[in-house]
Amino acid sequence: MRGSGKANVYAMLAHPVAHAKSPGMFNDLFEAEGLDSLMVPVTCKPDDFDTFWAGLTAMQNLKGMIISVPFKIPSLAKCATAHPRAKRVGAANCILRMPDGSWHADNFDGVGFIEGLKKANIPIAGERVLLVGAGGAGASLAYCLAEEGAASVTINDIDISRAKQLAGLVKTAFPASDTAPGAPDPRGKTLIVNATPIGLQASDPYPLDVEGLTADMTVVDIIMDPTETRLLQYAKTLGCRVQYGQPMMDCQMQAMAAFLKVADAGESNG
Amino acid sequence: MRGSGKANVYAMLAHPVAHAKSPGMFNDLFEAEGLDSLMVPVTCKPDDFDTFWAGLTAMQNLKGMIISVPFKIPSLAKCATAHPRAKRVGAANCILRMPDGSWHADNFDGVGFIEGLKKANIPIAGERVLLVGAGGAGASLAYCLAEEGAASVTINDIDISRAKQLAGLVKTAFPASDTAPGAPDPRGKTLIVNATPIGLQASDPYPLDVEGLTADMTVVDIIMDPTETRLLQYAKTLGCRVQYGQPMMDCQMQAMAAFLKVADAGESNG
Repeated sequence: MRGSGKANVYAMLAHPVAHAKSPGMFNDLFEAEGLDSLMVPVTCKPDDFDTFWAGLTAMQNLKGMIISVPFKIPSLAKCATAHPRAKRVGAANCILRMPDGSWHADNFDGVGFIEGLKKANIPIAGERVLLVGAGGAGASLAYCLAEEGAASVTINDIDISRAKQLAGLVKTAFPASDTAPGAPDPRGKTLIVNATPIGLQASDPYPLDVEGLTADMTVVDIIMDPTETRLLQYAKTLGCRVQYGQPMMDCQMQAMAAFLKVADAGESNG
Repeated sequence: MRGSGKANVYAMLAHPVAHAKSPGMFNDLFEAEGLDSLMVPVTCKPDDFDTFWAGLTAMQNLKGMIISVPFKIPSLAKCATAHPRAKRVGAANCILRMPDGSWHADNFDGVGFIEGLKKANIPIAGERVLLVGAGGAGASLAYCLAEEGAASVTINDIDISRAKQLAGLVKTAFPASDTAPGAPDPRGKTLIVNATPIGLQASDPYPLDVEGLTADMTVVDIIMDPTETRLLQYAKTLGCRVQYGQPMMDCQMQAMAAFLKVADAGESNG
């Protein structure tokens, strides 16, 4: 019997939400750990977000939410407090109910990415990084790469002004890294990261200038499906070390579980 | 893995909600039937009800709710449509999302009670009923007993005006039954029903004048915990037939499942 009246309830918010895997993964985790907790997918029309949020905030036994597109930015604005890594990218992807009923925001996109690299013993400190994609995920990664001591972070985006703006912000936050906008050219770099959706479709072009890739580079793609994008397939044929998207998600999931389970400690025994 | 992003979500609303058993029972049922559905307990402060309701209405994948104290009456007012048996008692205990996004209300308190008696082959038509308790549950039972053809329904309540008012309404709705307020005296009756909370505590008095009980009567208590209330214990010693509260709950649960599962038919394949 799953879900007593005392269960801590969690939600995974996105629109649409049909693709979401977090509820199933978290329910498995709760069950494996013997926790009386449940996670449900939730969705609302973006126009109804304010009403929806107010209602779920009034739901006293809702202990936390995982937030996805298109609600990451408006959700952060609803939270009373936030971790610096959520504030700096202006987006929440996980929120936790505080004892006073308010929400605390965090963002584990970059955390999962960094942890995934660390687990695979892929160095970051001292590396010269090419990061393609300066959207929500790219921004999280850029800050974290600089924070972890990358020698340089070259940020490329199809929207040049977006790459420029992000590079400026990251440089200000972590001046020790040489962060700047630049071309999607791997030459001279050591760690190549795709943080764009280019590669989701088999017919997509490469997200960067693959002719510049050489066997001494590590190539990372945050796309999870397909497991091996065209970029990674090509990099492998060159002898590059590659890293798939799944480890980032796995590590992010672990970080979220640790964050959300704070709520279980005090409440489940009631 | 329970709860994909496509899962139909249901909620069980009460304040407090810690005692609720419906979420666990429904989740077991969903699992047994291989349905990608989840039910979670939800609660809010009564003062926050309007905000909470608006938010949950905006939650597009919320397909239905079971409603309990203290929200049965305000919930009915929020529904666009309602079954006559919910309207006549002025309270919803189950709501279903309609294709246009609005809510349809029903109330299965009386339905479960009647089905429980029928399954046990306890006759209703032609019986002379003493019903003690004219609150929410008692009102549902009174209408259903008259609707099922009880020869008479004598309604007793500690609040005499409440018993009087309910009897008048039931009599108007089902004039064929002789429904009237009266004393908590079983003499001359054949079916004795306790619909008060008296008996939840071992130290409670009897809810009616047990000296009038005789072996030819059937005595029913809607209290589920304890299984055998003091009233039923005493009735058994007299040789009365007794009916516990659990069958009413079981039958109500079945009726709610049939009602709520309408939502699964069209949606889970999406």
